Amino acid sequence: MSEIIPGKMYGVGTGPGDPELLTLKAVKALNNADVLAFFAKRGARGNGRTIVEAHVRADILELPLVYPVTVEEDKDSESYKRAIDGFFDQSAAEIAVHLQAGRNVAVLSEGDPLFYGSYMHLHLRLAPHFPAEVIPGVTAMSGCWSLAGMPLVQGDDILSVLPGTLPEEALTARLAGTDGAVIMKVGRNLPKIRRALAATGKLDGAIYVERGTMPTGHAMPLSERDETAPAPYFSLVLVPGWKGRPQGVLA
Amino acid sequence: MSEIIPGKMYGVGTGPGDPELLTLKAVKALNNADVLAFFAKRGARGNGRTIVEAHVRADILELPLVYPVTVEEDKDSESYKRAIDGFFDQSAAEIAVHLQAGRNVAVLSEGDPLFYGSYMHLHLRLAPHFPAEVIPGVTAMSGCWSLAGMPLVQGDDILSVLPGTLPEEALTARLAGTDGAVIMKVGRNLPKIRRALAATGKLDGAIYVERGTMPTGHAMPLSERDETAPAPYFSLVLVPGWKGRPQGVLA
Ligand SMILES: C[S@@+](CC[C@H](N)C(=O)[O-])C[C@H]1O[C@@H](n2cnc3c(N)ncnc32)[C@H](O)[C@@H]1O
Ligand SMILES: C[S@@+](CC[C@H](N)C(=O)[O-])C[C@H]1O[C@@H](n2cnc3c(N)ncnc32)[C@H](O)[C@@H]1O
Repeated sequence: MSEIIPGKMYGVGTGPGDPELLTLKAVKALNNADVLAFFAKRGARGNGRTIVEAHVRADILELPLVYPVTVEEDKDSESYKRAIDGFFDQSAAEIAVHLQAGRNVAVLSEGDPLFYGSYMHLHLRLAPHFPAEVIPGVTAMSGCWSLAGMPLVQGDDILSVLPGTLPEEALTARLAGTDGAVIMKVGRNLPKIRRALAATGKLDGAIYVERGTMPTGHAMPLSERDETAPAPYFSLVLVPGWKGRPQGVLA
Repeated sequence: MSEIIPGKMYGVGTGPGDPELLTLKAVKALNNADVLAFFAKRGARGNGRTIVEAHVRADILELPLVYPVTVEEDKDSESYKRAIDGFFDQSAAEIAVHLQAGRNVAVLSEGDPLFYGSYMHLHLRLAPHFPAEVIPGVTAMSGCWSLAGMPLVQGDDILSVLPGTLPEEALTARLAGTDGAVIMKVGRNLPKIRRALAATGKLDGAIYVERGTMPTGHAMPLSERDETAPAPYFSLVLVPGWKGRPQGVLA
């Protein structure tokens, strides 16, 4: 009687957008994978899938995991939570079938897999039962401050990563209590984010970065960004906080 | 009359230790560099230099930048500040000579160059005068939570990066006001870090990671780490803060 040795799951960080920001380890995992799983919105290809395009073997089995819900839905509603939990359960079950059959599965994750990424939901469900390895990636914030050439923290500084979805009061309090900050999930929150930064005297140095490290990516002072137009999904705000910064540099 | 076109400076993120966590872009920059600069302590080789070993061409010119001071010195003293500023000025001047002569210079930086790295001091001095590009890298914290398979933040969580050198009161206050946290610069601060975590009810889930992604790297519950022995330079503490974590997983 022969027993099938289960396959291995790789959570593959793709980095923030530039395909050259893939790690050697990520490329190797793609080469060794039998199945390529990736999250995608209905009707779209998935940004992670686009990033790895040059490394997808012709004979790999593609497994798109299509979100059942739209970003417009209220994320605190019970119906949203049920739908998304069911989606992660089902995605994990689909991947488990391949692992049980002895196939290695690479699951793409934009940026770093365990940094605010959907991959963690699959990892929590599958890692207790199958061999699993997380391949860290370059985060969006690293890609963005590198593009802007803007160090946020040094020495004994504190860095806070804040979702732009926080209530204005919480955002203001957290900005007051940190040195550097990164504000993710900008979207329709631009006016609120600007008010919170202004209230803490941090609006002036703040930088807005859109599609960092992607072909049309760019950085600009947040104060020059038209705040009436919502920011695209791939955007964030950098707040420099380097206390010991030599005077006059990048002020 | 011929004019020399100045060379380009690359700030090259090497990732946290595993050479396979170099990005394709970092490897390309190393291939195109005429000069390889890297920070090192007196008598040591420099961890960044060790990470890139397999990609160093035999004909590259190596430029070690040897710190003039030891970690034991008081970092707030005027004499320390003068020595370290002078060291960065001189290092920048040495690199400028190569750039002026038309040579491309790769400056290694462990992890991500602009995330608490020494490279930023050279970037601020040289980027206004020469072409310069920062190649982001995988941070130590991403390497460590990937190794531990431990997501710290999700959804609308806040992540705080805190230096273990903060006074106990500040550390406790910041831990109380965040969801997930990463505590860097552990060293002799272990007992203080444990007290601050205990005071905020966060000691139980905390993970200690030493030499993450390096050959002898490992992760363990912080509560099991002998706190009388100081932690090595390459260590940090992960504090999970995922509010929406499904009950019972990785508790
Ligand atoms: C769900 S989080 C995923 C973060 C990712 N796992 C990482 O490691 O950076 C998505 C947020 O990341 C930010 N983001 C992702 N890619 C970006 C890019 N190329 N430029 C700017 N922001 C980006 C946006 O703020 C977006 O709201
Ligand atoms: C000056 S900071 C440099 C951070 C680096 N630029 C990065 O992107 O992560 C040095 C601190 O990083 C952490 N560190 C660096 N490499 C590490 C590793 N392989 N494992 C654990 N901690 C590490 C330690 O806490 C150390 O005190």
